[in-house]
Amino acid sequence: MGTCDGQVRLPNSHLEKLEGDYLFHLNIDINNPKVLMSFRQVQFVCVGGTADRIKRLATALAAELDSTDDRDKLVDISNERYSGFKVGPILCVNHGIGNPSLSVMLHEVFKLLHKAKCHDVTLIRIGTCGGIGVKAGTVIVSTAALSAGLEPVYLTSSLGLPLKLPTDVDPELVQELIQDRAPEDTFDVIAGKTYCADDFYQGQGRLDGSFCDYTKEDQMRFLTLLYDSGVRNMDMESAGILAMGRKVGIKSAVVCVVIVDRLESELPTVSAAQLQEFQNFPNMLVKRFIMSRLRQTSKQAGNQ
Amino acid sequence: MGTCDGQVRLPNSHLEKLEGDYLFHLNIDINNPKVLMSFRQVQFVCVGGTADRIKRLATALAAELDSTDDRDKLVDISNERYSGFKVGPILCVNHGIGNPSLSVMLHEVFKLLHKAKCHDVTLIRIGTCGGIGVKAGTVIVSTAALSAGLEPVYLTSSLGLPLKLPTDVDPELVQELIQDRAPEDTFDVIAGKTYCADDFYQGQGRLDGSFCDYTKEDQMRFLTLLYDSGVRNMDMESAGILAMGRKVGIKSAVVCVVIVDRLESELPTVSAAQLQEFQNFPNMLVKRFIMSRLRQTSKQAGNQ
Repeated sequence: MGTCDGQVRLPNSHLEKLEGDYLFHLNIDINNPKVLMSFRQVQFVCVGGTADRIKRLATALAAELDSTDDRDKLVDISNERYSGFKVGPILCVNHGIGNPSLSVMLHEVFKLLHKAKCHDVTLIRIGTCGGIGVKAGTVIVSTAALSAGLEPVYLTSSLGLPLKLPTDVDPELVQELIQDRAPEDTFDVIAGKTYCADDFYQGQGRLDGSFCDYTKEDQMRFLTLLYDSGVRNMDMESAGILAMGRKVGIKSAVVCVVIVDRLESELPTVSAAQLQEFQNFPNMLVKRFIMSRLRQTSKQAGNQ
Repeated sequence: MGTCDGQVRLPNSHLEKLEGDYLFHLNIDINNPKVLMSFRQVQFVCVGGTADRIKRLATALAAELDSTDDRDKLVDISNERYSGFKVGPILCVNHGIGNPSLSVMLHEVFKLLHKAKCHDVTLIRIGTCGGIGVKAGTVIVSTAALSAGLEPVYLTSSLGLPLKLPTDVDPELVQELIQDRAPEDTFDVIAGKTYCADDFYQGQGRLDGSFCDYTKEDQMRFLTLLYDSGVRNMDMESAGILAMGRKVGIKSAVVCVVIVDRLESELPTVSAAQLQEFQNFPNMLVKRFIMSRLRQTSKQAGNQ
């Protein structure tokens, strides 16, 4: 799990024995040395829910890199199940909704990074979320991900039995992301715990699903309990990404923008245009983080 | 939950009190009477993983209906998150990977059926799956869906606490689907229990994920335990669809084709062309089921 030279090495001893291993859902040929070479420089993996959002981020990153090197251009690696784009040292892939959809993609992206011998990789999820006592438009960097039972774990399973994987976050990465806010930004960036639900309706205490077994009072008691536990937002993938990153030794972060304060409403009350603007905030922050890291890397290389 | 007149009525008393309710992920305007009217005749909801698969099914159904009525044509209702098509009395929507992704879509489809005052709706998932001691190309109709712990429940959460919803299947619907196999079909159709995992790798006992904490012997012990418990296949959505359908009183079924016998291999060993052919088998069976039901309905209407 991780190594001192920063190379991605996966904690699965079966992998070296496999014949004809391949990425069933990503459909990238990891047995082709040329394909692997094209991913070797990857240092950042950005993931997000929808294909459209991830394409917008990749396009913005390609413009920002502004390089004459063909390897820095936008390369579409989408397939039937996931949409992906490689832009120089950045791999952007959508994960759909929920931890199971995310986990299938992450397992295969991790295998790609391992086979391509990538180094010093940082994994970041950008997304939208419901805030708890936090106003719409605020960007939250997760300091922990809690699952049902309010434990800081990702609830999954192994060989037919429940499995809990810890979701510890790297505090330095959280601080670095928060400090990437620029004075001219029109949005706030805060740190907070994230509640990771496996359902958008009852799982997140909404009253407007197709069924609901509780009262408005139960709902407010739950949301208040979350707030009092330090939770500032809710999503459906934070636990999976933080736990899986930790498990394979890749530093991971979750950067989400609040689109509704759940203490005030079930669903967003802002206009479609504002919603679109809000979605751009995590992208701006993560783009700045990546460009700043890349400048540091090239400076270090220049000094050597 | 359900009613004697067959009209979809949801078990959520909050819904009638909501102002400006809408379908956040499906983005269908349920406050527009004209939109609701266009869905009122829906009697079958077919769901499947990928957008491509669901479009293929919808296109085949539109050709099969072969009607001059414009309402029976293929209508694309896709949005940023889900792909959907309405074909006369059939609504086809993709659900992505895993129960959380499925549950978001189903909650909103159920609300649409409720608001549109649909009657006698049957819900069917078509998909691919890993078989347990069943050869590739066999179609399995689920008689139960077991989750981690091998209980016949859908594991989800409500207000921050774990929630288990039963996944009972309607045995008559299972029989009807099995009997829709035609003598000329090149595939077998069998009934069997389905193990519903929330992960494709460790969750389904694979050795080739990005991490793996067990041995080949542990894996075989798990797969044998499943077989001995009556499990004949594995997927990632059967528990969600059966439990949610049951909860709102809509009869539901899961019809999946085996693409690999997991007692023999981790990943499919058949050609891409064969894989494509296999994927068509559940579609053929479900298309036949729907056309047979529609003929019965029009016969009954003719007799009245």
